[in-house]
Amino acid sequence: MDTLDVELGPRRYPIHIGAGLLRQAALYGEATQRPLRLITDEHVAAHYLPVVRETLRLGDTQVLVLPAGEATKTLASVERVMDWLLATRLPRDGWLVALGGGVVGDLAGFCASIYQRGVDFIQIPTTLLAQVDSSVGGKTGVNHPRGKNMIGAFHQPRLVLADTDTLKTLPPRELGAGLAEVIKYGMLGDAAFLGWLEENLDALRRLDEAALRYAIRRSCEMKAAIVAQDERESLAGGAGPRALLNLGHTFAHAIETYTHYTAWLHGEAVATGLCMAADLSARLGWISTDEARRCEQLIARAGLPVRPPAGMRADDFRALMSLDKKVASGKLRLILLRRLGEAVVSADFDAAALDATLAHYSA
Amino acid sequence: MDTLDVELGPRRYPIHIGAGLLRQAALYGEATQRPLRLITDEHVAAHYLPVVRETLRLGDTQVLVLPAGEATKTLASVERVMDWLLATRLPRDGWLVALGGGVVGDLAGFCASIYQRGVDFIQIPTTLLAQVDSSVGGKTGVNHPRGKNMIGAFHQPRLVLADTDTLKTLPPRELGAGLAEVIKYGMLGDAAFLGWLEENLDALRRLDEAALRYAIRRSCEMKAAIVAQDERESLAGGAGPRALLNLGHTFAHAIETYTHYTAWLHGEAVATGLCMAADLSARLGWISTDEARRCEQLIARAGLPVRPPAGMRADDFRALMSLDKKVASGKLRLILLRRLGEAVVSADFDAAALDATLAHYSA
Repeated sequence: MDTLDVELGPRRYPIHIGAGLLRQAALYGEATQRPLRLITDEHVAAHYLPVVRETLRLGDTQVLVLPAGEATKTLASVERVMDWLLATRLPRDGWLVALGGGVVGDLAGFCASIYQRGVDFIQIPTTLLAQVDSSVGGKTGVNHPRGKNMIGAFHQPRLVLADTDTLKTLPPRELGAGLAEVIKYGMLGDAAFLGWLEENLDALRRLDEAALRYAIRRSCEMKAAIVAQDERESLAGGAGPRALLNLGHTFAHAIETYTHYTAWLHGEAVATGLCMAADLSARLGWISTDEARRCEQLIARAGLPVRPPAGMRADDFRALMSLDKKVASGKLRLILLRRLGEAVVSADFDAAALDATLAHYSA
Repeated sequence: MDTLDVELGPRRYPIHIGAGLLRQAALYGEATQRPLRLITDEHVAAHYLPVVRETLRLGDTQVLVLPAGEATKTLASVERVMDWLLATRLPRDGWLVALGGGVVGDLAGFCASIYQRGVDFIQIPTTLLAQVDSSVGGKTGVNHPRGKNMIGAFHQPRLVLADTDTLKTLPPRELGAGLAEVIKYGMLGDAAFLGWLEENLDALRRLDEAALRYAIRRSCEMKAAIVAQDERESLAGGAGPRALLNLGHTFAHAIETYTHYTAWLHGEAVATGLCMAADLSARLGWISTDEARRCEQLIARAGLPVRPPAGMRADDFRALMSLDKKVASGKLRLILLRRLGEAVVSADFDAAALDATLAHYSA
């Protein structure tokens, strides 16, 4: 097992990464001494609820099982969780446990942040995507029909348990979606890690434990270092260090909104978004066409889509990107690659290059 | 005009108090350079929206007028506000303006805290209650059928404009409700201020501007000093300095829940709660019976109720108080008076004395 500490002063917390963690009560820290409520989804419940329930000694009324999938990440679900927490009278010093992927983590974390103006929570991410991404950084929230993650809060967990055993039951598409975020970290901050991924992609896809542990740890380290500089994405009006984590995401959010959060997994949309960001960076002359192609090839090898959905046009991208949170006072900012392994925030790029990228990726 | 700074480090903000403030654009600070959205209710809109709209140059699509009253303070209203903010595309660097009483302030502040994971907002409280209480401290939120303010966040405003002219259109009952909170500050922290109130209650009731300015400023000062010590009510598991502000509120919340937030104003429930807290403190021998009677007389002179609603029984109080946020792990904590002008948090009081108080105040 590896343990990584996310350094956020009084909100510092550990991420434990490895196999067989769920049954180790000592890893849950203070949670074992608190009134607890656990939120999960029906898929995850079938596999991992029994062991967590036994380890934490949870009764039936302490567990809420929600429908699986992005469609659960709504204000209506928040209302349902609030009703349940109040009906079962979780006190203010109680903790929530989020057992599941990004949907459960984002929803449960947001509910923890607003229940009685905030209670503590722990994350047990059971997808690769959640392990490398949504369990670090404190972003919580739900979607709105007009945009993804439009309603939410910053709320740090007390600890994260990333048990690599939970990836054994992950559908291949979901594993790929997680790999997209791992590749993102190589592209945005560490060209050497990108090289490591090119060599170890097959080991990751066959769930080699040491490879997974390294990839998760390295991704979390990079994210944690960025988050520690800019906990609330508030520096430079949202154009500070933390924005770099959104490499590919402006395109990805447009794809997800266009497909109503159903047809594509978040990581799949990010995969295509990464290709588009690399393509635009190459058109601007910041990276070479070869480097953009290397990224695309790695993404394709991970079994991920490298083109937007059929029928989505340049104008669809333009309309949906203008609602993105990275638009400040009407000006679109994108995260692009100054060079391979070094992302930058830019509002000052050649609009014709963006047009060319959108045209290239449109039906 | 008086200006009081609430000292919260990077979240420090000013409260301007006086007559004729709404038309002074300079007092709105940075708001005049930001994309703005204003939330108000239909009663306040009729009186004060025109001047604020003109001063801030707001267009029709920038203003949302909600129904007046506590029934608006729900998750359903939050959803409506989110729909509106997204439909009108407020960017992340935009600000919200809350123009109204506590309902508008709490709702708009909470919406500001969760819209795109948080945007800035300013408070323009138009009731005495909101001016002395809900505009200081950063508590925002909405009610749930199972309890008041059960869903919310801590989110500090960028500035507060407390214009005493807005009290001229306040119904007498609402003025009384604000006086209840003012009296609370005297009882919990400053016996001399309580004496000043006994002398100046009539001036306050006839809206003497100097008296109002002093009472608002002194109340805000006391609240601000307490909030600065304990911004998120997190010290000592919620039993720290900030909890003192809840003098009378555990009883008051029970009354409000019992009457479904409709028949009683919040300040009226607080008034009775203050009488009950003083009565219990006297039964414990902490203050004298004469001092408890002095508090009750001042509250009655302000036109406020000093008894719970007809039909409400001791058991109703017990059931509703156990859901109160001040219950930590099953133990009821109350704010009581160690002496007049000095409140304390106590979970270690004689239960028989509480029974006697509840019996005395029951139908």
